[in-house]
Amino acid sequence: MLSERNKILVESIKRLLRRDATTHLRKIVDKTHAADMSVVFRSLSLLNQRKLFDMIKDAQQKGVLFSELDEDIFSNFIEDMDLDEFVEILEQMPTDDVADIIGRLPKEKSDTILEKMKKEGSEEVEDLLRYGDDTAGGIMVPDFIALKEDTTAKEAIESLQKEHLDVEMPFYLYVVDDHGRLVGVSSLRQLVVVHPDTPLKQFMTTDVFSVETEMDQEEVAKIVARYDILAVPVVDDTNKLVGIVTVDDIIDIIRDEATQDILKMAGAGEEFIETQSVFKSTRTRLPWLFASCVGGIIAFFIICHFQDSLSKVAYLAAFIPVIMNMGGNVGTQSSSIVVRGLATGQLNVRDIWSVVFKQLSVGFILGVIYGFLIGMVAQFRYDTVALALSVGFAVICSMSLAALIGSMVPMAFARINIDPAVASSPFVTTSVDIISVFFYFQIATTLLGI
Amino acid sequence: MLSERNKILVESIKRLLRRDATTHLRKIVDKTHAADMSVVFRSLSLLNQRKLFDMIKDAQQKGVLFSELDEDIFSNFIEDMDLDEFVEILEQMPTDDVADIIGRLPKEKSDTILEKMKKEGSEEVEDLLRYGDDTAGGIMVPDFIALKEDTTAKEAIESLQKEHLDVEMPFYLYVVDDHGRLVGVSSLRQLVVVHPDTPLKQFMTTDVFSVETEMDQEEVAKIVARYDILAVPVVDDTNKLVGIVTVDDIIDIIRDEATQDILKMAGAGEEFIETQSVFKSTRTRLPWLFASCVGGIIAFFIICHFQDSLSKVAYLAAFIPVIMNMGGNVGTQSSSIVVRGLATGQLNVRDIWSVVFKQLSVGFILGVIYGFLIGMVAQFRYDTVALALSVGFAVICSMSLAALIGSMVPMAFARINIDPAVASSPFVTTSVDIISVFFYFQIATTLLGI
Repeated sequence: MLSERNKILVESIKRLLRRDATTHLRKIVDKTHAADMSVVFRSLSLLNQRKLFDMIKDAQQKGVLFSELDEDIFSNFIEDMDLDEFVEILEQMPTDDVADIIGRLPKEKSDTILEKMKKEGSEEVEDLLRYGDDTAGGIMVPDFIALKEDTTAKEAIESLQKEHLDVEMPFYLYVVDDHGRLVGVSSLRQLVVVHPDTPLKQFMTTDVFSVETEMDQEEVAKIVARYDILAVPVVDDTNKLVGIVTVDDIIDIIRDEATQDILKMAGAGEEFIETQSVFKSTRTRLPWLFASCVGGIIAFFIICHFQDSLSKVAYLAAFIPVIMNMGGNVGTQSSSIVVRGLATGQLNVRDIWSVVFKQLSVGFILGVIYGFLIGMVAQFRYDTVALALSVGFAVICSMSLAALIGSMVPMAFARINIDPAVASSPFVTTSVDIISVFFYFQIATTLLGI
Repeated sequence: MLSERNKILVESIKRLLRRDATTHLRKIVDKTHAADMSVVFRSLSLLNQRKLFDMIKDAQQKGVLFSELDEDIFSNFIEDMDLDEFVEILEQMPTDDVADIIGRLPKEKSDTILEKMKKEGSEEVEDLLRYGDDTAGGIMVPDFIALKEDTTAKEAIESLQKEHLDVEMPFYLYVVDDHGRLVGVSSLRQLVVVHPDTPLKQFMTTDVFSVETEMDQEEVAKIVARYDILAVPVVDDTNKLVGIVTVDDIIDIIRDEATQDILKMAGAGEEFIETQSVFKSTRTRLPWLFASCVGGIIAFFIICHFQDSLSKVAYLAAFIPVIMNMGGNVGTQSSSIVVRGLATGQLNVRDIWSVVFKQLSVGFILGVIYGFLIGMVAQFRYDTVALALSVGFAVICSMSLAALIGSMVPMAFARINIDPAVASSPFVTTSVDIISVFFYFQIATTLLGI
């Protein structure tokens, strides 16, 4: 198991650090993948992080570690790092990661660094910074293999041997015209199976998937996932090839988007906050709870409105939790299904009415079942048919409405291009609560005649 | 946008089907990627699906479409399909997808099909069926390139030109010893940059990531995602290379696991159910709601217990929703953060106490803030300090406990190897509700002396 391996690694590194066993440590650092090292860093003090970091021999390894570190660990780590050393490491990193890191730095710092890098000819990074963080342009790498149509397979292989050694993932060879416009694609695989003198244009595929620099990264991820490709070329508005997005970045995007959706649905911000301080974490979660606080206070005023009935029949209050709960949970079920279905493309925003109608049907059936059950409990405890009926009807109402709201709100949000994930749990349960409480008291006071 | 492109595609195909414009349809079918066709199928009747399917010329294309279809559409579709035609298509598909499909069929049908396939020499599928669905063995493909250490780069390239034409993703060339045991890996890239006469053993990497057939697919996905590799070799318990898992399958796993987590956390089953019938969908959601129903009934009995106090001070009931809400939402926040953190590896099950302590601190601070706010509302409305204090304390208790339960339950579940995602929303909110209601009445009756 990955987690057990990490545990052993963390523990042995900590032990060796305590014993100051430099030779031994150097050996381990040498053998450890940067991704694993980033996990080790989570459990170390800044001082020990620094110690370990200095043991990494080549700047390239340091660069990989930089890309892998958690955001807050990274920003702590580089705070008092020497600028020249920092730039030296950045220069060894893939351009998209550098752009990412520089984008996160405070303005003055990033300007100084860009200035330094430009002097040494790294204007590519500045190019990437022009695009939005979450667009194809922002996540692409500008290193790719582009060849002309007349290049033969043999020449293409030769060019791989001489140039393009820094290309991250050389599986696809893109074919461009004289203006750098994308016209086709071939693969390393095809190069070695055709006759060496065959020109690219004879065996390239002209039906290339490509995306524009401005396309949202989530959309890019959907394309790569759907068509099972390893990299997708990015073109500007004149169809000029400017970069590629590789599948390893797509995996990160898919995971991060899922994390964001889960957190948004729970009303816990967008970024993963557990690694942040208690104060930061509180600040992120505070505003999301405000909606449910306001909702609770509205429910409070509704119940106050029925105060006279309540003083006559005090046990009415006892059913509030179960009615709210059943509604809230059906609402969460429906909104989660719809939000996730929209995110994966299994549901389409055009089918709003059929989706909502189906959710409503399911909510109603579930409401009838649980309404009957909970009504029976009421009947058993108080032996008052009107009360049992009130409770039963209230559960049916609450669960049907919850399913309706839980599915309609995210669908409607998606339709007007608001992220449906923000419209879920806290929002849905809060409105369901208010409505449930209101209907319950309205039904009960009518049926019980109080 | 992908969804708009699909919309246009669906609409033109529907129009052409109505007009029976076969020639035109054939052209579109020819040009459309199977992944897009599977989306079109969602909006068509079985009859039209069949019509369109028959227009696909080669069996391989049909096979790709089979792998892409939604599960329920697929099982409807093949119900009355000719068995010989079915087997013919299966034979064109990647072995892992075939094993997947056959695993889903009813026993008699799958036996007949395996019998037929075996006659034609497809025992590979049966091999794959031996492994668990969710293990490395279950998701691997048995087609890979394995060469001996002494093979030269030139010979390796030649073997690519002659054999291995059916290998799905030929980026890595695995190096095995005489017993088929994995000893190293090289890449297509390296083959073309070294001198043609260099033997593999001179330039292969001996430090290969590999996974065992029994490893859980989620674990495999973590490895591929962490180390940014395109395929990971699968070995049996003697380190013999038996297959590879490719990155395109990993993407599907990562998405599906995220979907499962979201649905489980909302208590809405494991599989995406919106495409199922109302009846099926109701059946899936019904049992998950039972926990919150029981919880609600327990809360009911708790409130009944305080019935005397309630008849004296009826407005006590008015604060039930807001106290339950605040607790429930903080609990959902905490459990979502912890469940997702564990899934992505950002949180480690070993750190249970530091995570829980931090969540508790955040819950307490949030509780103090909102407790004050809601207490103020109570004071403003009823001008009774003891009531305001009761409400305030109850909110603090509820929110702190919710954060505690919301983080501790999933951490504890993960520790004893139960999926933490099942331990969330319905479970956490229900127990928080019960505890909140109890504390609230206990505090209020004490402070108000009723």
